[in-house]
Amino acid sequence: MESRIAERMSRLGTETAFSVSLEAREFAAKGNKIYPFHLGDMNIRTPQKIINAAKKAMDEGKTGYCPCAGIPELREALAREIGRSRGLKLAKDNVSIQPGGKPVIMKFMLAFMNPGEEVLYPNPGYPIYESQIKFHGGVAKPYGFRMSARGFSLDLGQIERLITPFTKIFIFNNYHNPMGAESDASEMAKLAKLCVKHDLLVLSDEAYFDITYAGKPKSIASYPGMAGRTLILYTFSKKFAMTGWRLGAAIGPEWMMEQINRLNVNDESCSNHFIQWGALAGLRSTKKETKQIIDTLRKRRDLACKLLNGIKGVKVFKPNSTFYIFPDVTDAMRNLGFDDVEEFRRFILETTGVSFCTRRHFGTPLESEEREFIRLAYSGIDLKDIREGLLKFKEAAENPEAAEKWRKNRR
Amino acid sequence: MESRIAERMSRLGTETAFSVSLEAREFAAKGNKIYPFHLGDMNIRTPQKIINAAKKAMDEGKTGYCPCAGIPELREALAREIGRSRGLKLAKDNVSIQPGGKPVIMKFMLAFMNPGEEVLYPNPGYPIYESQIKFHGGVAKPYGFRMSARGFSLDLGQIERLITPFTKIFIFNNYHNPMGAESDASEMAKLAKLCVKHDLLVLSDEAYFDITYAGKPKSIASYPGMAGRTLILYTFSKKFAMTGWRLGAAIGPEWMMEQINRLNVNDESCSNHFIQWGALAGLRSTKKETKQIIDTLRKRRDLACKLLNGIKGVKVFKPNSTFYIFPDVTDAMRNLGFDDVEEFRRFILETTGVSFCTRRHFGTPLESEEREFIRLAYSGIDLKDIREGLLKFKEAAENPEAAEKWRKNRR
Repeated sequence: MESRIAERMSRLGTETAFSVSLEAREFAAKGNKIYPFHLGDMNIRTPQKIINAAKKAMDEGKTGYCPCAGIPELREALAREIGRSRGLKLAKDNVSIQPGGKPVIMKFMLAFMNPGEEVLYPNPGYPIYESQIKFHGGVAKPYGFRMSARGFSLDLGQIERLITPFTKIFIFNNYHNPMGAESDASEMAKLAKLCVKHDLLVLSDEAYFDITYAGKPKSIASYPGMAGRTLILYTFSKKFAMTGWRLGAAIGPEWMMEQINRLNVNDESCSNHFIQWGALAGLRSTKKETKQIIDTLRKRRDLACKLLNGIKGVKVFKPNSTFYIFPDVTDAMRNLGFDDVEEFRRFILETTGVSFCTRRHFGTPLESEEREFIRLAYSGIDLKDIREGLLKFKEAAENPEAAEKWRKNRR
Repeated sequence: MESRIAERMSRLGTETAFSVSLEAREFAAKGNKIYPFHLGDMNIRTPQKIINAAKKAMDEGKTGYCPCAGIPELREALAREIGRSRGLKLAKDNVSIQPGGKPVIMKFMLAFMNPGEEVLYPNPGYPIYESQIKFHGGVAKPYGFRMSARGFSLDLGQIERLITPFTKIFIFNNYHNPMGAESDASEMAKLAKLCVKHDLLVLSDEAYFDITYAGKPKSIASYPGMAGRTLILYTFSKKFAMTGWRLGAAIGPEWMMEQINRLNVNDESCSNHFIQWGALAGLRSTKKETKQIIDTLRKRRDLACKLLNGIKGVKVFKPNSTFYIFPDVTDAMRNLGFDDVEEFRRFILETTGVSFCTRRHFGTPLESEEREFIRLAYSGIDLKDIREGLLKFKEAAENPEAAEKWRKNRR
């Protein structure tokens, strides 16, 4: 029967990070303690006001269908909030509520990408971009990042060289998963000019826009000529610690929203009704709570970066956004005698319980890459375990004999 | 910018029934009372046990991600329940939780239909079948129904004649929206043989399986040779009055489920976490409450059918399933001087406030059709308003002068 599977499924990717979760669970099942740095999930509670508002909506019988684009109240509030924070003029009809941020990626590709058209996307990057581009018949063209003294940054020259007459879409993930890379105002202005010059449509994945620790975040949609060609991927998951609620939005010009809403009707009809009232309470009255979430995350980031930089052969930039860090472990691997970053990952997991992803879980490495990286998420682990885990990590990473012994035992 | 929309979007359909909702809302906004027979939504409360369990899960912090196929507890409970009610051997891995029943349609087409392959689907029928077949490049081949003294039934001869070497998929919606049609055991056995003979994959839309008023419902998946080729679309929406919760499932052989789960990872990551605990409570302990829901619906059905059959020129079968009725209004239209069933619909709406859909909202009428039908849903309207509305309907439908006057005023 397997021969009956549609051909397009052979082009569908996945999040290989899930296999790391599985390995970690298996290791834990043997009675070991896990330090979960592999998860992008959060161990922070959703603010009580949001929970209370969702409960109230259930009690009021808001359990029937709502409009396919979402309840007008939430769409209006989100238009105001996104308009304010991004400096855009938005109204209700620029907002379409979605069952998560992720569904926006598939809907964008379905609505705006024809087979054979080229899409530029970040690599390392969220692996679903490449998956959805290829799945729906597009040509996936990865662009990379440069490492400088200040951190990771785009290579605008490389991006422009990738553009051909067949390039239609540019996927931009400022406040970038997994690297925490961030374009400053001048770089974003140049990028925007490039998009206008080559008449590209833009999917601006702003999942981590509100997870920034200093400065005022900016959206590429606010640059000249961009608002009419940019769709913003918004999620309630991170800022409000609502990952498992599955609520997000597509935000953009009306001509785009009309198509997204047609897909809503065809795919899920609408997003869950009563949790939209919870999210509305989140937008209206959780300033204090969301600040607390950021403060919690900041402390974790600072501690994790400090401890990682204390490990011989590990070097990490402290990113100003997201809840990920992306250390360069090339020298630590060399010290331990590892060529393969996945082997290094397994060694650390099996000797310490510290579980993380590697660069390989975020796309196929580009030819130009010479260094090896891992990715740690600190959204699902508290300070005590960050300290305990990373001290164990240090001990293992500075012990070539243990690595040698581990390799022997594996054979 | 509109020229940048992907070509496939020109093949995407919709639920035109939403335009009826809009007309009804506009009519209501002028201060008129609406009798909402157009909605498939429910004005029945979700059982309190389900609400309580979902709230408890929120309080327990079940607000983070869960596995892409759903929480194991719900998958196991659903495997048991569907196994029991359909006479199938099922385990957790045969179940993939979805954000509604509807998403199963798109995922089925993406996973199993190649462009150019033919799909048989019911017409009249749920309009999303045709939309999703065409959207993803398939060839949509409608099959119709026959009217007999007992109600609507399939034309097996027509179905077999439609099958060609390019036919890959058969969409079956027993307990059928909008007609309430139902195949008996012998007809289902013949259908199953046909599917096995021609090696078809089957999408069995069982959204209304549990909304049956007499007898024991059956699934085509339980017939010889069918379990390995049939995907069941399941929804929590109807039986548990959970339409706005957006929770359903795909249920089928493991080789199908693996593909569906890959799409879950790519589309929505997972369905809302805590409402899955609510649904689990629904499966475990709401026998009394779901019986009450069926009893409520049965009374509405009986009253609506009795009143409709009392209208001159209207003839309706009392269906044994779903919460829809599908009256033949050909003679009533003739008596009033209407050729067009949509004109008839508007006349009734504007003179009485009674709002319903017509056959046209469930696919393009087939050439063989000679009679005109409307569809009334009784899931969102209580007994008092059913009586009040349908008595007004009778008055208008038996008043040719009023129709003549209405037509004059429109010109």
